[in-house]
Amino acid sequence: MACGKCLQCRTGEAHICQNVKIIGVDADGAFAEYVVIPESNVWKLDPAIPQEYASILDPLGNAVHSVLAGEIAAKSVAITGCGPIGLFAIAVARATGAAQVFAIETNQHRRKIAAEMKADAVFDPATQDVKAEILQRSDGQGADVVLEMAGHPKAIRTAFDIVRRGGRISLLGLTSKPISLNFSEDIIFKGITIQGINGRRMYQTWYQMTALLKAGKLDLHPAITDRIAMKDFSSAMERLKTGEASKILVYPNGTK
Amino acid sequence: MACGKCLQCRTGEAHICQNVKIIGVDADGAFAEYVVIPESNVWKLDPAIPQEYASILDPLGNAVHSVLAGEIAAKSVAITGCGPIGLFAIAVARATGAAQVFAIETNQHRRKIAAEMKADAVFDPATQDVKAEILQRSDGQGADVVLEMAGHPKAIRTAFDIVRRGGRISLLGLTSKPISLNFSEDIIFKGITIQGINGRRMYQTWYQMTALLKAGKLDLHPAITDRIAMKDFSSAMERLKTGEASKILVYPNGTK
Amino acid sequence: MACGKCLQCRTGEAHICQNVKIIGVDADGAFAEYVVIPESNVWKLDPAIPQEYASILDPLGNAVHSVLAGEIAAKSVAITGCGPIGLFAIAVARATGAAQVFAIETNQHRRKIAAEMKADAVFDPATQDVKAEILQRSDGQGADVVLEMAGHPKAIRTAFDIVRRGGRISLLGLTSKPISLNFSEDIIFKGITIQGINGRRMYQTWYQMTALLKAGKLDLHPAITDRIAMKDFSSAMERLKTGEASKILVYPNGTK
Amino acid sequence: MACGKCLQCRTGEAHICQNVKIIGVDADGAFAEYVVIPESNVWKLDPAIPQEYASILDPLGNAVHSVLAGEIAAKSVAITGCGPIGLFAIAVARATGAAQVFAIETNQHRRKIAAEMKADAVFDPATQDVKAEILQRSDGQGADVVLEMAGHPKAIRTAFDIVRRGGRISLLGLTSKPISLNFSEDIIFKGITIQGINGRRMYQTWYQMTALLKAGKLDLHPAITDRIAMKDFSSAMERLKTGEASKILVYPNGTK
Repeated sequence: MACGKCLQCRTGEAHICQNVKIIGVDADGAFAEYVVIPESNVWKLDPAIPQEYASILDPLGNAVHSVLAGEIAAKSVAITGCGPIGLFAIAVARATGAAQVFAIETNQHRRKIAAEMKADAVFDPATQDVKAEILQRSDGQGADVVLEMAGHPKAIRTAFDIVRRGGRISLLGLTSKPISLNFSEDIIFKGITIQGINGRRMYQTWYQMTALLKAGKLDLHPAITDRIAMKDFSSAMERLKTGEASKILVYPNGTK
Repeated sequence: MACGKCLQCRTGEAHICQNVKIIGVDADGAFAEYVVIPESNVWKLDPAIPQEYASILDPLGNAVHSVLAGEIAAKSVAITGCGPIGLFAIAVARATGAAQVFAIETNQHRRKIAAEMKADAVFDPATQDVKAEILQRSDGQGADVVLEMAGHPKAIRTAFDIVRRGGRISLLGLTSKPISLNFSEDIIFKGITIQGINGRRMYQTWYQMTALLKAGKLDLHPAITDRIAMKDFSSAMERLKTGEASKILVYPNGTK
Repeated sequence: MACGKCLQCRTGEAHICQNVKIIGVDADGAFAEYVVIPESNVWKLDPAIPQEYASILDPLGNAVHSVLAGEIAAKSVAITGCGPIGLFAIAVARATGAAQVFAIETNQHRRKIAAEMKADAVFDPATQDVKAEILQRSDGQGADVVLEMAGHPKAIRTAFDIVRRGGRISLLGLTSKPISLNFSEDIIFKGITIQGINGRRMYQTWYQMTALLKAGKLDLHPAITDRIAMKDFSSAMERLKTGEASKILVYPNGTK
Repeated sequence: MACGKCLQCRTGEAHICQNVKIIGVDADGAFAEYVVIPESNVWKLDPAIPQEYASILDPLGNAVHSVLAGEIAAKSVAITGCGPIGLFAIAVARATGAAQVFAIETNQHRRKIAAEMKADAVFDPATQDVKAEILQRSDGQGADVVLEMAGHPKAIRTAFDIVRRGGRISLLGLTSKPISLNFSEDIIFKGITIQGINGRRMYQTWYQMTALLKAGKLDLHPAITDRIAMKDFSSAMERLKTGEASKILVYPNGTK
């Protein structure tokens, strides 16, 4: 919930509002039968969009915001970290014209889902030389765009290793650990651009998601791994931890 | 052939070079067994790209240049005029994330090919109310992007009628007739942007085309309507005039 | 007063709101002792800014919006039409790095004020060959940016004549007369961009104006030609018609 | 000397050419009576520009490239490090519409020159709380743009501390030391953009410099601290080390 009155809110950057309130953190959350939400935060789902997608529009919006934060058409795109946003980013990048999408993920379950989302190549950084693989697939240039969605120091290191001269790194993955870089070699000589990505432009991404989903450009089903009744909540959390589950749809009155 | 020395050439805008020379107009043309071309105008076709596409890369490059002259992902795109560049633009817009592609064309043969290129809807302005059709398919907004490739006064009028407030019109189609507009209603109140599109950024579009073609994102075959031996040149020209033919591949030593 | 709910309002384009209401046209106007204004349309003047500037912030905002609708630093800028917005645009273009500012105006009084606003050159299209003058001052290139603020067919013709290949024309001046162009010669071969400019991004331009005014970058005093008591309203209107007056400050309780 | 054939050279990014050769490093240098330079690297100084500026156009071009690598008009700009490029950046930012320019520099001699270049405020990070000073001068927002030109870990830390949410940091200053950041706090939550800046777009910056210098928008004389005969070369180097000298003009045949 953006304040609507700060510099950022007033200049189209409400997603980095200075006084943002997060439901569940700064205001009563949504683990209740009813929740009070400002009118402006409510979006009516287009009837042409499968209803189950309603529950995953927010992370999809983050993916759309990240992918479209710079040019993407005809570019090679590498995604480090295949949690739900990373998986959705694969679909969004493909739908918006990325020539190649590389997924990089240590967890085997997530790599399997990444492949189902139709990444052009999926790499395991624990056993593969990711940089060599990507250079070989990009005429030695490296990836035009890297979306860092893991928040792990090794993944961040990989992001800087694989981006091409003049490329873009969009950073989403959060980490509390300090990250050390060689600014001259990693950033300046390569002339890259790095973006901190936080949240999403709410309405713009809603319009974009609606347009892409209605057009049938995004198949997100592989990322919806589980559909459970609310009473099975605890056991489902286990599958999230192992990476076997990605997005879990919870049905209040038992699985539909 | 750009001069390489004017303001435009030196600032990345060689496609609008002040001293451009066109082969066949300002220099000896290519209707000969051999032709002299500057080294920098030669592009080596990637072996992964079907060889027959080599002969249509130039108009494809115009289409890529036009479509990507502004944002395209998740946008609705209308194309007025389905000659070869218009047809290619359908494929490029789809491949780069346009949510909907509308094709507008008076010739029935070209409309048929436009449908084969997978335009989401194809309209005949002679018999259909194009504006009403597009408003109805875009929540009453109009098209986000209009690519004017017909060069006919009526098509240009349609372009201004169907573009949404704040949208973009990219103009390619040439016409020697004066065009009359109501600047206040057609341009200013709607806050639109109009681009004159001439040629293409040569290398950038070559890189983009190569990436998209190698990725299998573009199927241009419906636009290649005829394959003829060079000796049948004259009869093929007839089919071009009627619109039955779009791109004709001419084989010097008989049809392959 | 923008509606806040249409596509344009929700994506940072409220200045081209589909349902905009203009005070004095669609709602009771401001020629009254009190006026009701939505809270979001009120801007508190920074105490460091001369209070008399408060009454001219709206047209200044239009000028800021127009000048900064594209790159301006180190560019040559031509302004056709020197009403208040045109005059303010001279100051804004200079303050934001335009290398040369050319003012074009038929009225001698306005030309005089344009010179006082420190335009680098002021031309009278009735007696001077404006195109030749500007080509000569721009190494034969033409103006990088043209701001069309006259709304007269001849001024619009001049705008297209003087813009350089690859340049920008921003259109503000309203005209009810149809304008005829040769699209091929005037727009396409030159590869120019044309923008319809309507209103202003309200908050963004307020922030920009505040920053520039506080920094002392804009001297708008030459455009404030008259300061009158409200009772002298009628006679002041005469001076507006002749062009002798540009911005007239009206003091409710007599001239300060 | 860019190769002219790599991806970067062919797409307008020759300043980050993969095969760039630096005169004096990869080819015979310019400490000689004659030097061989490719024709395309030669720029004829406009006769209206003071001849002494010829020798400082290259670092001025770096400053222009850095300042104009993003929006600058009506922005607050902080420059960390006032070597020659930093000093020139003060002048360029002012000339292109920055509302406020803050200079941050530990060396007292350089701070003095920064003030002469008309920085709005000059801070000594050794004795002043730079963050507090800048927040106070920017309504608590921080600087819209930070140009990091010191290459020192403390200056880099300051850059991230003072940039506002959604702001830009352009990195030029080289350092061999590893820099440690908290990616979440420093980059992601603030939604900032970081650019690695290397070299300059050669022709574009030449055109921009020429336009700004001819227009008299840049007074660089405070940065030219010394004019010496070539025979006094060694003693002048001492003054460079202490920071007393910034740009030193060396006259082959004795001081003019």
